[in-house]
Amino acid sequence: MVGVRLQREDLRALARGCAVLGAGGGGDPGPLLLMAERALDPERGIEVLAPEEVDPERLVVPAGLIGAPTVAVERIWNGEEGRLLRDAVERIFRVGVAALMPYEIGGANGLLPLIWAARLGLPLVDADGMGRAFPEMQQQAMNLAGVSASPVVLTDGREGTMVIRAPDNLRVEWLVRGAAANLGGVCSAAIYTMTGAEAARATIAGSISRALAVGRAMAAPGRTALERLHDAIGAVPLLEGRVVDVERFTDQGFVRGAATFEGTGPDAGRRVRVELQNEFLLALEDGDVRAAVPDLICVLAADSGEAIVTERLRYGQRVLLAAAPGPAVWRSPEGLELVGPRAFGYDVEWVAVEETGAGVG
Amino acid sequence: MVGVRLQREDLRALARGCAVLGAGGGGDPGPLLLMAERALDPERGIEVLAPEEVDPERLVVPAGLIGAPTVAVERIWNGEEGRLLRDAVERIFRVGVAALMPYEIGGANGLLPLIWAARLGLPLVDADGMGRAFPEMQQQAMNLAGVSASPVVLTDGREGTMVIRAPDNLRVEWLVRGAAANLGGVCSAAIYTMTGAEAARATIAGSISRALAVGRAMAAPGRTALERLHDAIGAVPLLEGRVVDVERFTDQGFVRGAATFEGTGPDAGRRVRVELQNEFLLALEDGDVRAAVPDLICVLAADSGEAIVTERLRYGQRVLLAAAPGPAVWRSPEGLELVGPRAFGYDVEWVAVEETGAGVG
Repeated sequence: MVGVRLQREDLRALARGCAVLGAGGGGDPGPLLLMAERALDPERGIEVLAPEEVDPERLVVPAGLIGAPTVAVERIWNGEEGRLLRDAVERIFRVGVAALMPYEIGGANGLLPLIWAARLGLPLVDADGMGRAFPEMQQQAMNLAGVSASPVVLTDGREGTMVIRAPDNLRVEWLVRGAAANLGGVCSAAIYTMTGAEAARATIAGSISRALAVGRAMAAPGRTALERLHDAIGAVPLLEGRVVDVERFTDQGFVRGAATFEGTGPDAGRRVRVELQNEFLLALEDGDVRAAVPDLICVLAADSGEAIVTERLRYGQRVLLAAAPGPAVWRSPEGLELVGPRAFGYDVEWVAVEETGAGVG
Repeated sequence: MVGVRLQREDLRALARGCAVLGAGGGGDPGPLLLMAERALDPERGIEVLAPEEVDPERLVVPAGLIGAPTVAVERIWNGEEGRLLRDAVERIFRVGVAALMPYEIGGANGLLPLIWAARLGLPLVDADGMGRAFPEMQQQAMNLAGVSASPVVLTDGREGTMVIRAPDNLRVEWLVRGAAANLGGVCSAAIYTMTGAEAARATIAGSISRALAVGRAMAAPGRTALERLHDAIGAVPLLEGRVVDVERFTDQGFVRGAATFEGTGPDAGRRVRVELQNEFLLALEDGDVRAAVPDLICVLAADSGEAIVTERLRYGQRVLLAAAPGPAVWRSPEGLELVGPRAFGYDVEWVAVEETGAGVG
C-alpha cells in the first residue's frame, strides 16, 4: 500500500474491513460506500502515504464523526465537512494540511476521511489512532504518545464550527462529547492534529492497508464466514445464535446498552450478553468474561457474513458472534488503563481472548 | 463619566445600579463587589472610555458570564477568565484588544468585565449590548446593528476554551447555550467582539454611567425605596407583598420558572405572577399584563430596598414589585421582535408599562 493509490474497486473491501475492525462501532460504513465511489477520481483514485512519507513539517489531521451512531444514521451529510475542518485547522495552526487520516479505522469513520481527502485533493495517511474503533477521544495512540488532542475542531457541516482547547485529553473528551450532543448528537471532527513528524511516531501505522486486507479476506471464496473472520483477524467463535434482546439508548453523545444472544444449532441452550457503548465492549456468559475490550467483539449476520454495527442490531437477527485479539498497543498495561474494561466502568479484569476458552463453547 | 476614572468608592453604587438594571438577571452582583474592590488600583481606579474614544482599529470585547445564574452562585471564579478570553481573542483576530465592556449591564455581568479589565490593565467602555439584562445572546444591540456574534470565546476558567462560529447570531445563541450547559452550566464569554469603530455605532452608550447614577439614586437619603426607584429609572409600583410561590429550574443553561406574589397592606387581596427566564419577563394580574419585557420588572427587598435577583427569590420574602420603561432601542418594532414577550414564547402583546395602569393598582 505504501506509495500506492487506492482505487474505486478497492472501496467495497475497505468498507467491509472497516465494519469488522469497528467492533460494532464507528457507524455503519454501508451508506458511505456510494459517497466514497463518487468522491474518488475514476482514473487516479487517491494517494495513500505511509506516515513517514508525509512532509514532517506540515499537518496530518485525524478526522471523523464524533457522537452517537444512532443519530448519524439519520443525518444527511453534505460532504463539505472536510473542507470546513481543513480550513479551520489551517486558520488556527497557520500551517498547511498535508493529509487526512481516520482517527479510528472502524465503521463509517474508516471511510469518511477518505471521502473528505479525495474531495480536497489531499492524500490519505495509512494509519489511524485506535487500530479499531473506541467510543472516547482519549482512547487514541496519539494520547499514549503524548500528542495533545486540542485544538479540536468540530462542525455541524452547516458552517457552524467549534474549536475546543483544554490542557488534558480527558478534559477534551468531556468537552467534545457535550459539544457533539449539542451539535445534534453527532458532528464532524478534526482531533489530535499533528505534524507529519509526530504522525510518524504517534499513530498506528498500516491501518488502511489492514482494513483492506481484512475486507478482502472476508470475501474469500470457499470459506465460511467464521473461517474468513479467523483468516482476517484471528477471530475465534463465541456463539451461533440470534438476538433475543437489545437495550439501546442515546446518552450524552453515546449509544449505550446491551444485547443478549441465544444459541441455536450446536450452541442451543447457551446465552451471551454483550455490553455496548458505541462499540461492543464485553461479552459475558454465565457471568464469565468471554471477550473484553480492547479485544474485538464481532457480530456477523449469519446470512451475508457482513459485520453488524451496534445501531443496526435488531430482535430476531440470526448472527455469528466471534472475538479476536485487539491491537497490541492496547494490550499493554498503559493501554489497558485507557481502554480496558475498567476504563468503561465494568468491574472485571481484562482476559485475553486467547485465554477465555471463547472458541471452545 | 467620559474620560474619567471609576474609583473604588464608586463600586458599591455601581453594583446596586447593576442589580436594578438586571431586572432579576445577570447574576447576583453582591459577591463580586469585594472582588471588584480588590481588582481596582486604590489610586488610579479604572479608566472608562466612551465608545468613540476607543482606537477605531483595535478591538472592544463585550464579556460576561453566560449560563444559569443559579449555578454561578455556587461556582468559584479564579479571576483569570478575562486573561483567557483576551488571549484567545487576540490569537483569533490577530488584533490587539483595546478595552472590555459588559455585554449586559445587569447584575454580576455589569461588574465582571470591570474586574477582568482592571486585572488586565485595560480600560472599560461606557456601554453595553442590552441596556439591561436579557437571557439570550441574539438579544443585543450589536445584533440589531449587524455585528456578528462570532467568533465567540468561552472558557471554564480552568484553561479550557471553546471558540464558536456560526453565520447567524441565533444559531450562535443555540451553540453557546449548549456549550455553557456543557461547561458546567455557566461559563465566561467574549461575544460580539468588534472594532472600536463598530462599538461607536453598535453599542448602547453610557451604560456604566447610567448604572452608577441608578445606584446612587437608590441610596438617596430621605426617600422610600419605591420613590428612589422612580427617581432612578422612572419605575411605577406593581405590588407590595410577599413571595408565596417560586417555581425555578435549571434548563439548558437557563433558569426558568415563575414566582407568585401576594399583596399585603394596601395591596391585600391582590396576586401577581411573574414569569422568569434568568430575568423577570412578564408580570400578570388576573390574566392581564401589568408589565412585559423589554420593560424592567424589579423586585426589591422590602427591608433593605435592594434589588433581588431571580435565583435569590425565596418563599416568604417581603418585597416591593415595580416596573419601569425598558431601553428605547428595544421598544421599536425590530427591538420587540428580538426581546418582546413573543420572543420568549408568551402569547401576549407587549404593552408599555406606562399604559398598563401598573401604578394605579
